[in-house]
Amino acid sequence: MTPSVGGLQNGYKSRLGRLQEVMTREGVDVLLLSVGPDLPYLIGYEAMASERLTMLIVHSDADPQLVIPELEAPRIEAEYLDVLSWVELDDPIRMVADACKGAQVAGLGDHTWSVFMMRLQDHLDGVKWQPASTYTGSLRMIKDEHEVEALRAAAHGVDRVLARVPGAVRFGGRTELDVARDLKRMAEEEGHDDADFAIVASGPNGASPHHDPGRRVIQGGETVVCDFGGRVDGYHSDVTRTFVVGEPTSEMAEVHSVVLEANRAGRAAVRPGVACQQIDRAARQVITGAGYGDYFIHRTGHGIGLEVHEHPYMVEGNEQVLQPGMAFSIEPGIYLPRRFGVRIEDIAVCDPSGIDELNRAPRELVSVD
Amino acid sequence: MTPSVGGLQNGYKSRLGRLQEVMTREGVDVLLLSVGPDLPYLIGYEAMASERLTMLIVHSDADPQLVIPELEAPRIEAEYLDVLSWVELDDPIRMVADACKGAQVAGLGDHTWSVFMMRLQDHLDGVKWQPASTYTGSLRMIKDEHEVEALRAAAHGVDRVLARVPGAVRFGGRTELDVARDLKRMAEEEGHDDADFAIVASGPNGASPHHDPGRRVIQGGETVVCDFGGRVDGYHSDVTRTFVVGEPTSEMAEVHSVVLEANRAGRAAVRPGVACQQIDRAARQVITGAGYGDYFIHRTGHGIGLEVHEHPYMVEGNEQVLQPGMAFSIEPGIYLPRRFGVRIEDIAVCDPSGIDELNRAPRELVSVD
Repeated sequence: MTPSVGGLQNGYKSRLGRLQEVMTREGVDVLLLSVGPDLPYLIGYEAMASERLTMLIVHSDADPQLVIPELEAPRIEAEYLDVLSWVELDDPIRMVADACKGAQVAGLGDHTWSVFMMRLQDHLDGVKWQPASTYTGSLRMIKDEHEVEALRAAAHGVDRVLARVPGAVRFGGRTELDVARDLKRMAEEEGHDDADFAIVASGPNGASPHHDPGRRVIQGGETVVCDFGGRVDGYHSDVTRTFVVGEPTSEMAEVHSVVLEANRAGRAAVRPGVACQQIDRAARQVITGAGYGDYFIHRTGHGIGLEVHEHPYMVEGNEQVLQPGMAFSIEPGIYLPRRFGVRIEDIAVCDPSGIDELNRAPRELVSVD
Repeated sequence: MTPSVGGLQNGYKSRLGRLQEVMTREGVDVLLLSVGPDLPYLIGYEAMASERLTMLIVHSDADPQLVIPELEAPRIEAEYLDVLSWVELDDPIRMVADACKGAQVAGLGDHTWSVFMMRLQDHLDGVKWQPASTYTGSLRMIKDEHEVEALRAAAHGVDRVLARVPGAVRFGGRTELDVARDLKRMAEEEGHDDADFAIVASGPNGASPHHDPGRRVIQGGETVVCDFGGRVDGYHSDVTRTFVVGEPTSEMAEVHSVVLEANRAGRAAVRPGVACQQIDRAARQVITGAGYGDYFIHRTGHGIGLEVHEHPYMVEGNEQVLQPGMAFSIEPGIYLPRRFGVRIEDIAVCDPSGIDELNRAPRELVSVD
């Protein structure tokens, strides 16, 4: 079982019920859900990403069924599920197809492997396929109080890591990979069930927003972008701070202050009724105004929850209006090719009064050893 | 960049060339490859699993192209690739579709998200879709000497962890999660770039082959199935040993000796020309003969390489014949519901003389604290 979200054990059935209401309203007969966030959200179980198919079948008008390899069936406990376990020589795709007889419109989990989709299409000729997120998205985008508290616990965990970093982590003379491992270990010490990722991008590598930390040895005088997170009860943290080894140059200090001002402007724009693209514009305007617009090469933020990136996205063109319960990152950055980069990222929740800031770690440019 | 495989930097172009030969022979016009092992195998780069599409386009008769988000483009260095980077407001699916004009048969990476497949199908009407593994599988299944050496380095790394376990890891009174973290940390200390997974299944949890390690406190007298691994230069380790905290009961010792004998029989059956299902039968026969056949609820093994599970599978019905260079696990187990489980897993490579055993850690039932 995926770590169950505190107090939610009884909430899964209600989520399934609300999803069935959406399905009936939208005219979709069945949802076929596999790897990714759908199963954790609906039944508190995470399917392994594997050649052995696990698939939750949500009918608009009947109880859900779960097709699962027999060797993983012991991990399931939900009593309200019809569990169809299969052994190595069975064909689970045929089991799913048999359970979907008569369906005309089907939603398929967005992350389901194409190799399974092809076989389902072979068996379910004439069915119209839609991404399952078309139906699950409106539910998952609004976090309930249990979900917000799980996100808050995760955010506070990485905040505690950041508070320890200046005294506990040596940067100069060590590799990016060394620092990345320290951050992951500390995130687990601070209450994370697992630490999913840690980008540590030093010096010129900082100009690559999704840099893979490697064997590069960090030098004195360099900036180091640290972007890391993990999961608490299934919900993600994701925070970025930029450190400097020793003293920053005046250019580094200036770029950092521009990014910090953009981060502040993004946070200040959050309130119900504002379009997501306005959060992007608020942050981008500061960076463009300071003359660095060409070097802010990504959107300002992404939704966060059971996925580290999910709807809604803070990006130009997204007219989705913020509502209380939406959780997302605000993470402007400036990336100067072959020189250095700076990013400052926080997780925020839109609440009725404006913004509920989950991350509270200091955002100033901190000098480390 | 994914850690590049030693000496292979120049081999990617040759792999692409051999793949194009297969494509021409099999009559497929284009392969569209995304997350999973295809990109690491063909260009030494691993796409992030993300809503931002990365897709390698392999034409049967033209140079390959790579569609990649601009913010990840700095991670790519391959000079023989035509890199098409896209910014946040572009539509990468349209870029891929435009590059495939005229294709009639297309292979799609097996792990590509269904949400991308649906959009590709919308744009490429009438194209016949096949799993890309239909074409890449025959290449990837036979490991070259560099790949075998990467697998060997990974296997030796987890063997060194196992040698340290009895002195270095305390089991009794600690949680499964504590032990799982120790194993992962030690795998990294022993040369792994990352430690992907660690199943630690104590007492009754041992009867669940894919148990998620949790907060259960391990007790004296219990068996503990430890199944863990990670990656060295992109290639996986995957090893299982079963320990006992203190002294085993006579039943535990008997079950362990049956599984060990099955593991031996599986290894003894490996040689070129033998069908994969014969490896399964060799191991299963021992367990069935000892009266535990109903409790060996999974196949005997899986191929291993850039994926932890890949072709060929050691399973009844698989008539694929072993050839030198095939790498796979041999991992019989006995799972007694609500009581305990035992599994012993090794990675082997078929070589011209029979078997090249990558894991050499002792397989006997070892007592731990």
